[in-house]
Order: sequence, then C-alpha cells, then structure tokens
Amino acid sequence: MKHIEKLAAIRQLMQTKKIDAYIIPSSDPHISEYLPEHYRCIAWVSGFTGSAGTLVITQNFAGLWTDSRYFVQANQQLAGSGFELVKLKVQHAPEYITWISEQFTVPATVAFDGNLASLQVANAVKSTLQPLGFEINGHEDLLAPIWEGRPTLPTNPAYVLDEKIIGKDTATKIAEVRAEMKKQRCNTHLISSLDDLAWFLNVRGTDVNSNPVVLGFVLVTEKAVNFYIAENKLDIQSQKTLEQFGVTIKPYNSVYADLKNLTSNDRILIDPKRTCFAIYDSIPEQVEIIEALNPSNLLKAVKNEVELAHTRQAMINDGVAMTQFFKWVEENVASGELSEISIAEKLQSLRAAQPGFKDISFDTIAGYKDHGALPHYKAEEDSNYKLEPKGLLLVDSGGQYLTGTTDITRVISLGEITAEEKEDYTYVLKGLIEGSRAIYTKGTRGYQIDALTRQPLLASLRNYGHGTGHGVGFFLNVHEGPHVFNGTATDIPILTGMITSIEPGLYREGKHGIRIENLVVSRDLVSNQFGDFMDFETLTLCYIDTALVEKSLLSDDQINWLNEYNQNVYNVLSTRLSDEDATWLRSKTLAI
Amino acid sequence: MKHIEKLAAIRQLMQTKKIDAYIIPSSDPHISEYLPEHYRCIAWVSGFTGSAGTLVITQNFAGLWTDSRYFVQANQQLAGSGFELVKLKVQHAPEYITWISEQFTVPATVAFDGNLASLQVANAVKSTLQPLGFEINGHEDLLAPIWEGRPTLPTNPAYVLDEKIIGKDTATKIAEVRAEMKKQRCNTHLISSLDDLAWFLNVRGTDVNSNPVVLGFVLVTEKAVNFYIAENKLDIQSQKTLEQFGVTIKPYNSVYADLKNLTSNDRILIDPKRTCFAIYDSIPEQVEIIEALNPSNLLKAVKNEVELAHTRQAMINDGVAMTQFFKWVEENVASGELSEISIAEKLQSLRAAQPGFKDISFDTIAGYKDHGALPHYKAEEDSNYKLEPKGLLLVDSGGQYLTGTTDITRVISLGEITAEEKEDYTYVLKGLIEGSRAIYTKGTRGYQIDALTRQPLLASLRNYGHGTGHGVGFFLNVHEGPHVFNGTATDIPILTGMITSIEPGLYREGKHGIRIENLVVSRDLVSNQFGDFMDFETLTLCYIDTALVEKSLLSDDQINWLNEYNQNVYNVLSTRLSDEDATWLRSKTLAI
Repeated sequence: MKHIEKLAAIRQLMQTKKIDAYIIPSSDPHISEYLPEHYRCIAWVSGFTGSAGTLVITQNFAGLWTDSRYFVQANQQLAGSGFELVKLKVQHAPEYITWISEQFTVPATVAFDGNLASLQVANAVKSTLQPLGFEINGHEDLLAPIWEGRPTLPTNPAYVLDEKIIGKDTATKIAEVRAEMKKQRCNTHLISSLDDLAWFLNVRGTDVNSNPVVLGFVLVTEKAVNFYIAENKLDIQSQKTLEQFGVTIKPYNSVYADLKNLTSNDRILIDPKRTCFAIYDSIPEQVEIIEALNPSNLLKAVKNEVELAHTRQAMINDGVAMTQFFKWVEENVASGELSEISIAEKLQSLRAAQPGFKDISFDTIAGYKDHGALPHYKAEEDSNYKLEPKGLLLVDSGGQYLTGTTDITRVISLGEITAEEKEDYTYVLKGLIEGSRAIYTKGTRGYQIDALTRQPLLASLRNYGHGTGHGVGFFLNVHEGPHVFNGTATDIPILTGMITSIEPGLYREGKHGIRIENLVVSRDLVSNQFGDFMDFETLTLCYIDTALVEKSLLSDDQINWLNEYNQNVYNVLSTRLSDEDATWLRSKTLAI
Repeated sequence: MKHIEKLAAIRQLMQTKKIDAYIIPSSDPHISEYLPEHYRCIAWVSGFTGSAGTLVITQNFAGLWTDSRYFVQANQQLAGSGFELVKLKVQHAPEYITWISEQFTVPATVAFDGNLASLQVANAVKSTLQPLGFEINGHEDLLAPIWEGRPTLPTNPAYVLDEKIIGKDTATKIAEVRAEMKKQRCNTHLISSLDDLAWFLNVRGTDVNSNPVVLGFVLVTEKAVNFYIAENKLDIQSQKTLEQFGVTIKPYNSVYADLKNLTSNDRILIDPKRTCFAIYDSIPEQVEIIEALNPSNLLKAVKNEVELAHTRQAMINDGVAMTQFFKWVEENVASGELSEISIAEKLQSLRAAQPGFKDISFDTIAGYKDHGALPHYKAEEDSNYKLEPKGLLLVDSGGQYLTGTTDITRVISLGEITAEEKEDYTYVLKGLIEGSRAIYTKGTRGYQIDALTRQPLLASLRNYGHGTGHGVGFFLNVHEGPHVFNGTATDIPILTGMITSIEPGLYREGKHGIRIENLVVSRDLVSNQFGDFMDFETLTLCYIDTALVEKSLLSDDQINWLNEYNQNVYNVLSTRLSDEDATWLRSKTLAI
C-alpha cells in the first residue's frame, strides 16, 4: 500500500465517520519521543521518519507540521505521499490547531486517537476548538482497520539493575515519590512515561531503539505500587527484587480497569505532558485530578554521587572510542573508501568494544559537507556521501553504557577548509566555552545559560535554530526533562547534579554545518554575601579540533579554557590508549 | 494615634467581626505602585513607607512582608509599631498566604479590602486557602472606621495632551484597543490602571506624586468609550477634545453601577494584575470574563517615532542638568556644606530649569558611602549624611518632562577611594556595557538581556538582588510594563520601540553601593539567513565617571564602548552647556 493509498483510505473512513479533520501526533500511550515500531504511525502513513511532527488530514489537505530541523528531510520523504510540509514557527507548538480553526464553518468534527495524544495536546485542541463550536472526538483510531502487518508491541525482556550501579534503591524512590504526592495532597499517582518508570523501579529493557526502557505503567498509592507490564518480560529474579520492595506485577492492559475503579475518595496526580488522553479519559469523573510534573521526573534529573561517578567512567570509555575513531578517519580518508554510513558503523563497533556498552544512544548523525547543515541528518543509501580529504565532517553520536549515557558532537577538518568554515567554527566554539564556564546562582533557569552560550554567535550576527542543551539520563534516554537550556520560559531551576548538554551550532544550507557538544553536570561552587554560586563540570572527554580555530577571534580566557580542556582530555585518556593512539592524541591536544 | 494603637484598634475590629487574619496590600483600586495619600494604608497603619509590601495581622502576630530592597528601612520604621519584618524570599511573591495557611486550624476567616487587592492577589489567596477550608472575605475595610483625618482623594486638574507631543490620537488608540478586543472575542473592556488610561486617552494630571496620572476608569465597548473621573477635574477644552473622539465623561464612582448592568450577552476583558477585586466582584455572574493583559499596556510600551524623538530631546535636557549638578557637587564638596538632602534639592532645581520640566519622576535617591548600599534609600533629616571629599556617591534620579520621562543612576568618586570600590564599580560597568551592546533576535525575552548584563558580575562571584531593568513611560510612570529585564520567566518579547532601563548594581552593606543606569530603546538592526537581529540605542546622556574604572578589568571592546559613549555625551551636550561647563565635561569624557 503506497502512502497516497493509505491517505485515501483514511479519508474514506473519515467520510464514513463524519470526521472533518483527523490529527495524528507523533507519540504513543507513554508520550515517548522515540517510538516502538508499533506506534510509528506518521512514518507508516506519510513516509516521514523524523522524531517530531504532527499529521493533520482533511478532505482537501493533508499536512505534516514539523520544525526547522526537519524541513529538508520532510520535503524529500513526503514527495508523492499526498502530504505537504507545513513549517512550524515555534518548535513543538500545536500551530495546526489554529489552522484547523480557520478551515471549517462549525459544526465540524475533529478527531484523534487518545492513545497517541498527550493530555496537554488534547487540552489544547479542546480549549481552542470547543468554544468555537467544534466537536472533539478523542477515541478514533483510523489506522487499525487499514494497517496490515502492523508490528506487534515489543516482547523484549526487562531486568532490574544492580543497586550498586544506580546508588538508590526502589524503596527509597518510592518513599521520595510518596512524599511529593503528600505535598500535593494526592493519594494516587500514575506514571506513564517510560523513562520515569525505568528510573523509579530501576528497570531497563530494549523496547525502544537506543532508549533502554520497558513498556509499562506504574500506579502508586499510599500503600501499594502496581507495575503494569506485559507478561513474561521480567525474569524471575527481577520480579522477586521488585516484590521485595512491595511492588505488585500486573498485566499491562489492566491499568485501565484499575483506574476505572478509583472513587471520589481518590485524588490522583498525573502529568499532562507525560500522560495520554486515553488514560486521562479512563479516570472516573468523580476522581479529583491534579495535573503536575511527575515527581519522578525531577528526582531522576538530579543524579546522585554513584550515578555521577559511573558517568565519569562512561565518559572515559566513550572518549577512548571517539579518539580511536577520529584517528582512524584521519588515516583512512585519503583512500576514498569512507562514507557517512561506513564511518557510523565503525564508530559503533569501537564503542561496542568498550566495557559496559549496551547500545548507541541514538542514530549516529555523520554529516559531511552540506549534510552537516541538517541538524538531524541520518545518512541513507541514496544520500550517503563518500568522504574526501577536505571540508568539514560533523559527527553527533552517543552510547548507552551500563554506567551511563553519552552524547557528543564534534566537527573535524578533513583537510582543506575555507576561511568561512574556520570563522563559523570558532564562533560556535566561543559559544560552547561561554556556556561551559558560566557561573550562575541557585535558581538560575536554562534560558539564562542559553543566552550566555548564544551570545558570541549573536554578536557576530549568527545564530542556530535549536536549543542549546537538553537533559541526559543515566543509562536512560539521551533526551530527558524536565530542565532544558533554550530560550523558552521554563520554571524549572538548574539543580546541583543535573546533567545537560551544551551544543551551540551554525548551519549554512548547501555549504556546511557545525555543532560542538559536551555534557556538563551542575555543581555547587561557593556561597558568599552575594549568593550561592554554581558552575559546570564538563563530563565529555574528547579533543576539540584546533585545526579549525581562528585564534584571533578568541579571548585569552577562551584560549586558556580550550587549552586546559584539551590537556585534560589527553591526561585522562592517554593512560587508556595504546602508545600510538596516545601519541596521536598528544598532537591533537597541543596548546594553541 | 500611635501605630501600636492602630494595630490594637484593628485587632479589636477583627474580634468583633470574627476575622482571624487581615491582609493589607500596598495598592489602590487601580493597582498603582505609587499611591495617592488616601491609599497609603501601610504607612498609616505601620509607619513603613516603602512602595512594596503587605501587612498581615492576626491576634498573635503582625507582620510586614517585603523584599530585600527594604529590609534595613523596614527594620527602622517598624520599631515600636507592633509589626515585625518578614523577609520575602522572592520579590512580589505572596508568601504570606502559605504562612497564613500554617497558622490556623479551620474553620478560620481571612479578610481584606477588595479595593486594595488585585484580582491576581485575590485569586492566589482564594486558590490556596479555600481548598484548605478557609473562609475568604474580600469586602472588609477595617481602616475606614478608625482612620481620622484620612486624606481625601485628589481633586487636582487633569488635561489632554497635544497630539503633536504623543504622535497618536485617541481615535487611533481606541481603534487599536478595539481590534485587540475583537481578537479575544470581547465586546467590553475595562481599564483600571492609571497609566494605561492616561496613554489611552492622552490625559495627564498630578494625582500621584511623580506619576502624571489621573484617577479614573475607562469602559470600552464596541460603540462607546466611558471615562469615569471626578467632576470638575477636566477643563472644558479637554472635555471637548475627548468628546470629539466619542468619549463620554461620567462620574468616577458610577463605573460600579455600569459594570453591574452588564448582561449575559457581554464578554469583558479585564487584566487580573491591573484590576482590583472589588471591580471584578461587581461584574454580574452571568457575564463571561476573559482575564488577559490590558491591550493598552503592550501598545503603550511600544513608543512611536514622535515619542522617541521627543524622548531624545528630554534626554539632552536631563543630561545638561545632570552635568551641571555633578560639576557643582565636585566644586562644593570640600566646603562640608553639602548633604544628601541638599544635593537632591539642588538637582531638582537644575532639572526644573530645563524646558518642559513638570516634576521629578520619583524621589531622588542620593546615597553617600554605606547609604548607597540601600537600593531604595531616601534621605530623611535624621539619616542625612554630610558629604566629604572621599568615597562614593550614588545618585538615582529622573525627571518628568512634557517630552518624556528620564531615569538615571550614576556613581561618582568624591576623592579618595579604595581598590575594592574601584573593582566593584568596574564589574558593574562591565555589566552595563554587556547589556547595552547586546545583539539579540526578534522574540528575545527580558530574561536573556538580564543574563548577559549579570554575567560579568557572576563571573567575579558578585551579584545584585534586583532586576536589571524596567520599562519606562513617555511622560508617564517611570516603572511601566509589561516587559521587564529580570530573571523571571516572562512571556513578553522585547519589541522594537520599547524603552527599558539597564541598571546593574553591587551593594556591600555597611560599606558602599554601586548602580549605573541608562535607558535604552530596542531597535531593528539587520535581517539575514540566521534571523532578524535587534540591538539597543542608548538614550541616556550623562558621562560615566572614569576615575572609578580599573582599566585592566575591561576588555578592549568594553573600553571602546565606554570611550565612545563618553565622547558622544560630550558631543551632544557640549553645545547646550556654557563654555565653562563644556570644558569641565570635556575633562570628564576623555578616553581612557
């Protein structure tokens, strides 16, 4: 069935069911960013494989609303599908709702599948369209009747992590979450989001590519903790461990029935950003619902000392693989045999040789020349560039280790480069340095770090269209909340122990792209009469290519930061490298 | 009647009326920051004269909740009043509500006068305390029965400004506000805030010290504009001008009756931050209320070309007065005759000699030595320091001119200074420079400018406890919204034409205080493939004292900015100064 035929089939169903506009969000019942194959509905319907977007279908129009990271990719992938790209002005904003409001004269019906829409999205649809006279129907799965051979839900095994790895047992986490529930005067709390669940129960699995999570729900009450998970996924030992902590294992789908049994004595805490509409809708009307951030989400973001010590270890392993990788690229680029795809495979194999390696943390972005200008580029057979000894190579990649999650971007020179490439690279580097050496006070929000990181680029009339950084899990999702370093008005302060990326960039369409990314952890610095000051410890250990630096654009402080960073990379990694690799790294980390 | 007796009288009334906690906000029915004498309730009850704070009275405790700017002042003024200072952790946060919630076992009654509480404050009280079982009563004025000789409401005359001054007539403004009402699908809109009203009708008056506003309300419907104002305040010509624009003049108090006459066909837009609870409460239940920012508030913040051209003129006048003032201080400080009070009077007289001068824009803050460390210090007879030829003098002052409002802070050396004073001054100056030369993109929020301005101070482990900047009116209030440069998560973007202060500081209690403040206007800079870039034009024209600069702490770019700024001050002001004054200013503006 071609995409255009699927679209026709959906439109036919819409006519039968008298649906004027049908919305397909990129999500699942757990509001995941990366989806199990079963829920990759947008890819199946339209061909678009990006991780963010929304389809809206009417009889006259079919569109994909997505943000600037995906414009080029979407234009290519949607060709012939019947879907058109609609460019979002603001990343993640539900701009299609306003569009729908302008397309119809009421009465008109807008429908979606409540399993794919977060409560937040459903609320936005309702609050905008209902007052205008639209009928909203959140219970229509139009794909089920036409999707033949739809992948089943994953049945991969799940397991409980050794407490020595994560430093905090499930009993403690249960007590912490219950304390937060009590503060909000709630006796019940549902966790739908898979990374929050994984942290809370210390379970891991392989249900989603690159995210070591397990499909499930958790219902926490004052007395009980129910873990809803498909049968036979948990091994006996893991089941026993959980049961020792008072966790009851129940069938995945029985969560809906248990929610329906809540009464007017119950007050449930659910997170509208991290709970799907179908779950919300199965809670009886008489139950009081408190919409708030999952307590586990913020608790998870603050890494404990054991997690941090392990993460530092993972960074060394990752840095060793990255060093071996770039040396290999440099030594082999002249052969003409390297391609974007082949180097991504090589990098994965080097990571896989490191202790504790489990998976890559996301699909490697290896973008040569103008492909570097596509921030979420993934090389496919028909786009795959061969590498030559000139220009810029951007590699954004990461690993899932039992001891932590990594995410790193480097740009290296493959030989001959232009003055513009050097200048662009240096301004991005200035941004990375200013963000990394920021000193800030308790209570600072991500938008303040974003402003400092972006400032050197803005001052040169350059900018990048994405945020400066995202939270990173501990052997968990490479993107995690609730904190974020971008320009939006978040109310989440930066807390001691949070791990975040700092990754300014610069993209010249058709020419080249640059992004330099390190992970940092927030730490206490000093308290004095003016406040409690914090700074960042940079965790990532991989040399920053100085061949691309236009030294005259850096301040003395910035030059010192760069030299000290590279020196430290050499000091820490060289003892783990062969003599030959260490000598090579020495040459890459010489002071400028 | 002493303060302690007033407190006892209020407590007696509370017992009679079975009120357990009584809240007295610092406000009036127009939610003004600066109050007519009639509404200076906190000063009358407790003796505290600061412009921000809230009293809460129970039978066991009486407290003033205020922020760090006022801690020293409040401790002094509350002595013997029966009130204790409670230090706010977050400026303007209603932290007393949580305190109340912890003091009582319900049932308990909390009361306030709905004329003094914004709808936002009333909503916060209700939403926190009602679910806990508290009774909330927003209709208790306990001061009226005991306040003998209470000042009456001002009867000062009001007038309509010449359109040539403000560049936009009332008919245009009415059309603009109605367009915004239509967007929100409202047929009715009430303006309570006095500066929004003054902008909307182009009226000015002298009802509040230093704020050229007039007590009144405006009710806008699709067909009518009613202006509620005390009889005889408007001269005949002004009345005629307003009537020509379709404005109906009505008695001040009749607004309540007109609101009561709204019906279920009406949908009214009111601003919860800028409307009092009593007004809200007089709207019939069947009327749909839309709570949103006053359209006039944002429209007012964006100055038109005529306003900007006039403001630049006012800045020259103000700069001339400031130059004459600092020269006079320098020449007379050795006499031992100058005091904080006498120099404030001298400065006012120099401003008053300038064309178009109407008033000072707020009480001058002239703080010598450790008095500079009190950001809102106002010298009184018993605190008044004599000036000596040593140490730092901080002067924060401004004028209301027919052509604009000014607000400027400078710190000058009176002779001998310490290395610490010089260092502190230089870090504050670095902050001012970084904020002033910021380049930013369309959509940037105040918190991003705050971060850039604060960064040099944070990097040296220094900080200041107040925001970086506030909006400034055009011949209107020296503090105006909706934009602000501080660390909080505002959703108001910086728009072309907004005037804002940039005023970093540094305060060492018992030693000295530093603040350097300029007004800037946002302007379009350039658009390219990376975005639409903006920057600031600095409006304020007064030399920055270089005798206090530790040059080794400034970057080359910062030194250039300072030298160019001072050179421009000399170029613009010298033609308006006597030869002697110009020669003196030349010496103050030499490049470092």
